[in-house]
Order: sequence, then C-alpha cells, then structure tokens
Amino acid sequence: MKQVEEVVWGWRDRSLDLRKDQRLKYIQIFKNTGPTAGASLEHTHSQLIATPQVPSEVDAEITGMNEYHNRYGRCVLCDIIGQELREGVRLVAENRHFVCFAPFASRFPFETWIVPTEHQSDFGQIRAQQVQDLAAMFRSIVRKMTLMIKNIPYNMVLHTSPVNVQNDYGNYHWHLEILPRLTTIAGFELGTGYYINPTPPEIAAQALREIQEFYPLQKESELEVPRYV
Amino acid sequence: MKQVEEVVWGWRDRSLDLRKDQRLKYIQIFKNTGPTAGASLEHTHSQLIATPQVPSEVDAEITGMNEYHNRYGRCVLCDIIGQELREGVRLVAENRHFVCFAPFASRFPFETWIVPTEHQSDFGQIRAQQVQDLAAMFRSIVRKMTLMIKNIPYNMVLHTSPVNVQNDYGNYHWHLEILPRLTTIAGFELGTGYYINPTPPEIAAQALREIQEFYPLQKESELEVPRYV
Repeated sequence: MKQVEEVVWGWRDRSLDLRKDQRLKYIQIFKNTGPTAGASLEHTHSQLIATPQVPSEVDAEITGMNEYHNRYGRCVLCDIIGQELREGVRLVAENRHFVCFAPFASRFPFETWIVPTEHQSDFGQIRAQQVQDLAAMFRSIVRKMTLMIKNIPYNMVLHTSPVNVQNDYGNYHWHLEILPRLTTIAGFELGTGYYINPTPPEIAAQALREIQEFYPLQKESELEVPRYV
Repeated sequence: MKQVEEVVWGWRDRSLDLRKDQRLKYIQIFKNTGPTAGASLEHTHSQLIATPQVPSEVDAEITGMNEYHNRYGRCVLCDIIGQELREGVRLVAENRHFVCFAPFASRFPFETWIVPTEHQSDFGQIRAQQVQDLAAMFRSIVRKMTLMIKNIPYNMVLHTSPVNVQNDYGNYHWHLEILPRLTTIAGFELGTGYYINPTPPEIAAQALREIQEFYPLQKESELEVPRYV
C-alpha cells in the first residue's frame, strides 16, 4: 500500500516540477500493463509524457465539460458522481475522498473511473489524505480485476487540466480511468470513434463489487496473483 | 484481381441499398486482418456497419475539410494529392484514377491512403473504371505489405460522406485508409489522441515503392504469401 502511495506522490511531484518549464502545456500520466495494452517492459511501471500543446482528446473533454457548465451551471462529473451514488447500479467503490464507478458509456469491458468527490481541476493540487485514498482505491480495483481475469491487460490514464495556458480550467474535474484491454480497437472504432463493448457497465460494476479481495495468509512475494501495484 | 473488384462492387451495392433506409446516417465499410487488428474470423472478409447518426470521427473530419475549404476555397485532399505528386517523397503508387501515399501525419508505421484523383464526396458514386483501379491498387499495396512483413495485421477503413442528412457534403473527398497494426494504441494514445509512430512516412513510402511485387510462377493456391485480398 505504502508503495502505491509513493507512486502517486511521484506522479504529483513530477507534475509540479515539469510545469516549471513554460513550454509544456499538458502532462500525461499513464500506465500500460501487459503486452496487449502496449507495455514494453515486464516489470510494473507507470509513465509520463509532457506535450508542448493541449492534446486533441483533452481539448475535446474540456470543451464538453465547459458546455455542460454553461448550460446547467454545474460540473458534469460532480453531477455524475451524485447520480452514480444515488442509483448505485454502476457504483464500484467509495472511500473518504474518491468514488469509483463503471461509466454509463463505457468503451471497454470493466472500464472504471476513479473520481475525487471534491471538485478539483488540477491533479497537482492533490493533498496527502487524497493521495492515501487514491492509492488504496486504485490498488484495490486493480487487485479485483486481476483476481477476476489473471494478467488482465489494462491502461491507466490520468485526466487533468492543462498547465501554463491562460484559459480558466476551473470547470474541469480531474479523474483517473482504468481501461482493461479485453477487446480490440479495430476498423470500426478507428473509422467512427465509437467503441463496441460487449459488457454493460452495470454487469461490470456488480462483478467488481462482489468479488472478494481475499488473499491467502502468505507473504506478498509468494502470491500467485501478480503484484501490479 | 476480379475477386477484389467483386468485393468493391459489393461495398458499393450494399452502400446504395442500405441508404434507402432513411434512419441510417453513415455506412462504415472496413476490414480487419489478423487478430492484432481485431479480426475474429480466420478467412478473409470485410465488414459494414451502418449507424443512425454521423459518428464523431467522421464529423470531426468533415468539420476539418469544411474549415480548410472556407479558408482556401479548395478541397484539402485535392491539395494534398497535388503536393504528394509534386514532392514524391511520400508517394507510394499512382494509376488512372487513384493516388496512394503515406500521409504526412501517419499514425501507424506504413499507414497509406488511397485517394481518388477526381474530387468525389460519396463512395457510392464510384464508377466502373474506378472500381477496377481501386481494386488493383488496394490489392497491390496489401500484397507489398505482406511481402514486407508476413501476416501483417491491418485495418482498412473507408472514409465517405454521410447519407440521409440535409447538410451539403460537397467539400468532402472520400478515401480509403490502410492502417497496419504494428504498434499498440496504449495509455498515451488513449489519453491524448496523439499517436506514437516510429516509422517516418517518407521511409514507409520508399519501402513500399521499392519492394518488388514479384510472385513465383505457381498457382495462386500454392503461394506461401496469404491471399488476403
């Protein structure tokens, strides 16, 4: 657990340091696990690439969040958290500072998002208690996925606000997406931008809620389940 | 050769027939070859999915082409064809009705686009001579790729104008994209929409120009090279 916390602190510290270079406009933190998900190293690792402009996908998400805010005067992710907590069917887990759910329009089977309950635009502003809770939740979800499907390939993608740009990103709500790669991005997906996902988010969330995060009383090093995190 | 022509006629006939259903707004024709590219059947096949709305990727491409036309009064793909024919470094092949090149901003190694030389918005309007030339060029490129890398996984994605929508799509220029899947769409690509491609299009085009499409004097059925098309 402590180790995952150190990793989250690492993401945050690198993010705060890199933005001192004014040329950098976005800091993409991500993690590829398993060859199908593009991992080129066998040992567990996460990565970071900073770009000199705001990437197109990030820009599209910001535009969407701003449009929602202009129309309703509220943050779309704050509203989604509220709805998922009320309805419960797509809810996976909840702790002091984070909510985890399978999003309504999941692109991948068992896609889950971890969202800070409090509205916060910039991942770099994460506080000590939040680091603890994010590490605990991320570790727990990945363990559950790994118990469900051994060596499950997945990407983790951290979505946060750009840096060193004049615009006000106050409407943005940072979050972490876990994207298992059990399906293939093929011709239809590349042509349309639509994803074919055979697993409804309600089924995915139920499975992730119900699976027991049980480990035999062994040293962690003896566990058969790979220690991804 | 005749067989590939029959396939192209099939795409065209299905496209013309499906659009009689006014609910359908886009007809996505594509082909997945190899498990890495999402093929679920072993025998060669192409696919078609019609959607009840214009997909986001198609919409973004139309918007881009319209913006270019508003600014310069010309079609961006017509301009690109002109530039690629002039410069030659990214040119792969040319026949009576089509130009094939590795696009400047290739997302994948050996990505190639086959574009009709004549400005044409709707693939459904393809004429008999064009069908012949498209089939010949598509077959030739895929054979060359297969000679270069045995069992190369690839997606073919046909980009064309929407159907049953009031808008004028006269600025759109249909084309066919061949996307070899030698790299993995991973966390960075999913987060940013940017693609990491280790093969410059100039190198890809040169390799595809230089490779000899030579086949031993055998029956096609005896060829070691898989008959993808």
